[in-house]
Amino acid sequence: MGKRIFNFNAGPAALPLPVLEEIQEELLDFKGSGMSIMEVSHRSKWFDDVINEAVERTKRLLNLGDRYHVLFIQGGASLQFCMIPMNLAIQGHPLDYINTGTWSTKAIKEAKIQGKDVRVIASSEDKNFSYIPKDYKVDGDAAYLHFTSNNTIKGTQWAEFPKSGNVPLISDMSSDFMSRPFDVSPFGLIYAGAQKNIGPSGTALVIVRKDMLERVPKELPTMLKYTTFSEDNSMFNTPSCFAIYTINLVLKWLEDKIGGLEEMERINKEKASTLYDFIDHSSFYKGTAEKDSRSLMNVTFRLPNEDLEKKFIADALKTDLGGLKGHRSVGGCRSSIYNATGMDAIRALVAFMAEFEKKAG
Amino acid sequence: MGKRIFNFNAGPAALPLPVLEEIQEELLDFKGSGMSIMEVSHRSKWFDDVINEAVERTKRLLNLGDRYHVLFIQGGASLQFCMIPMNLAIQGHPLDYINTGTWSTKAIKEAKIQGKDVRVIASSEDKNFSYIPKDYKVDGDAAYLHFTSNNTIKGTQWAEFPKSGNVPLISDMSSDFMSRPFDVSPFGLIYAGAQKNIGPSGTALVIVRKDMLERVPKELPTMLKYTTFSEDNSMFNTPSCFAIYTINLVLKWLEDKIGGLEEMERINKEKASTLYDFIDHSSFYKGTAEKDSRSLMNVTFRLPNEDLEKKFIADALKTDLGGLKGHRSVGGCRSSIYNATGMDAIRALVAFMAEFEKKAG
Repeated sequence: MGKRIFNFNAGPAALPLPVLEEIQEELLDFKGSGMSIMEVSHRSKWFDDVINEAVERTKRLLNLGDRYHVLFIQGGASLQFCMIPMNLAIQGHPLDYINTGTWSTKAIKEAKIQGKDVRVIASSEDKNFSYIPKDYKVDGDAAYLHFTSNNTIKGTQWAEFPKSGNVPLISDMSSDFMSRPFDVSPFGLIYAGAQKNIGPSGTALVIVRKDMLERVPKELPTMLKYTTFSEDNSMFNTPSCFAIYTINLVLKWLEDKIGGLEEMERINKEKASTLYDFIDHSSFYKGTAEKDSRSLMNVTFRLPNEDLEKKFIADALKTDLGGLKGHRSVGGCRSSIYNATGMDAIRALVAFMAEFEKKAG
Repeated sequence: MGKRIFNFNAGPAALPLPVLEEIQEELLDFKGSGMSIMEVSHRSKWFDDVINEAVERTKRLLNLGDRYHVLFIQGGASLQFCMIPMNLAIQGHPLDYINTGTWSTKAIKEAKIQGKDVRVIASSEDKNFSYIPKDYKVDGDAAYLHFTSNNTIKGTQWAEFPKSGNVPLISDMSSDFMSRPFDVSPFGLIYAGAQKNIGPSGTALVIVRKDMLERVPKELPTMLKYTTFSEDNSMFNTPSCFAIYTINLVLKWLEDKIGGLEEMERINKEKASTLYDFIDHSSFYKGTAEKDSRSLMNVTFRLPNEDLEKKFIADALKTDLGGLKGHRSVGGCRSSIYNATGMDAIRALVAFMAEFEKKAG
């Protein structure tokens, strides 16, 4: 099967090995169809079963009940940045955003391009987005309150979501979706690019509360309306079939092999605390996010200088630990430890970090 | 490897077996990276090589030279229906469309939704879209002239493209892209959903002439601007990596195994004429498209009645000939014979059709 490394990529990221093996096994003949999953019609029973299973698993894992649609929309979270204000703004009401980094900033920018009344009610830009804001006021007048649940680049995460009263929450959960259970009821819409926790790139998964769809303006282009996707089970046109197929297998793994979101969260906490504990006990490595805002998904840290960071990243790859480079916009190091990255990877990383510190220190 | 059937699906459709085998072989370890192609970063050298190769192969196969960008944009041809008028309209100039069926009709609808000055300068709706219009006038004032090169549902195809003088041609080539060589110079933009001739679903391939980009309005949402994709090699955000990877392998197969577009066209003509000749010599099967407008990609035909059609489709599948049902909007039978469907499949189909006629006749 070739070699496999420990993969700490920020996204596209590691997928569970049993999922990859299942894809490989049935790549030429999907369920006795005599065709690859890439070759079956999206209007066939074969693909219908796949997309329906993916929707049902999402509903089960997050306890969505019947109040939400689960949609698959191409274009990643970036297309959602523009679809959200386009579909869900209400004339005469502001759109509230909390700015916790690059992705929030982009979401805000797209709402402003459309000339919407955007209010940034809180921001952690004053300290280089190293924390999650605590002091902000939600006044109840907004059409929605948008926040980014986990900040891949800066390594911060909302431990508890903002309280917004009657204002529907909207969240970009691209980088921590399905990493922990949460109460969906305050949310009007949740979206996630698949390529971090639930699959390969090529689709976003969008969860939208049914009442929100009453806001969708009639005159929008067809492919930019949420109702186009909700009315046709995401198949107004051909969806990103292979991505949806893989997502379904990842969710199956999450349900059957891991045992659901409570257990996934327990594992994720154990992984993150092992890594943060090691960093906190070292004077060589230094975490960049404030402690109470730390992400369980993306552990960002620095070494004493950039030369050492370069060497650290290069040496790690030689030992089959990949993807430890920080985002190109901030530098430093980052270990992304999504669902599919197990405790074995964390142990290998910590051992390498200890060894590297000893040699360099 | 399980069984493989002869696959006549209209899209998603058959892929070349050697391509599927290569994907399967390296699914767990892409080029010694120790990661699946789904797990490597889109910012890595590994993926850079993939997307650059796919772009270069497209440029070589179609002789694009340096005047065109090759882009990968999610959302299928359907998103292009709205992006084209949004990006390429010119104030005070009409947008000309030729209507040859369902997909043209949808493209026209999306331009009208945006309130553009749309002119349908020719249509074959009068005869149920069974032919390609010959009489129409291009007056030189339009911002572009849009047509659908092949009509998957009705089985018609432009043998020679419209002459438009100085007006840039725009074509939806989803269902015959890379099936034959053609002169790109009259084209301002060409687009194709990948899932028919060049790969799995999950991305459209868009070819845009560089001068057309001067038309793109500044205030559009970022993800709906062609310039966002042209300025960043289709990687402003994470693209549909697995689809692009597969497209690159299909184009490699087209260059190395088939030998390029001239040879591909020769094979496609041989396939189509074998099937049409058989139909024309039968009084049992009846082609639905006018002879001089027939598609080399989608061969549409009827049997004496619907009960026989149902039995034909079901019996064919039992003999491992799949995907012969006509589009749900028109009924009847359809054999889609894209690049990856070889002469062996045509021979098997013709043999089955002869046998079925004998039993039923």
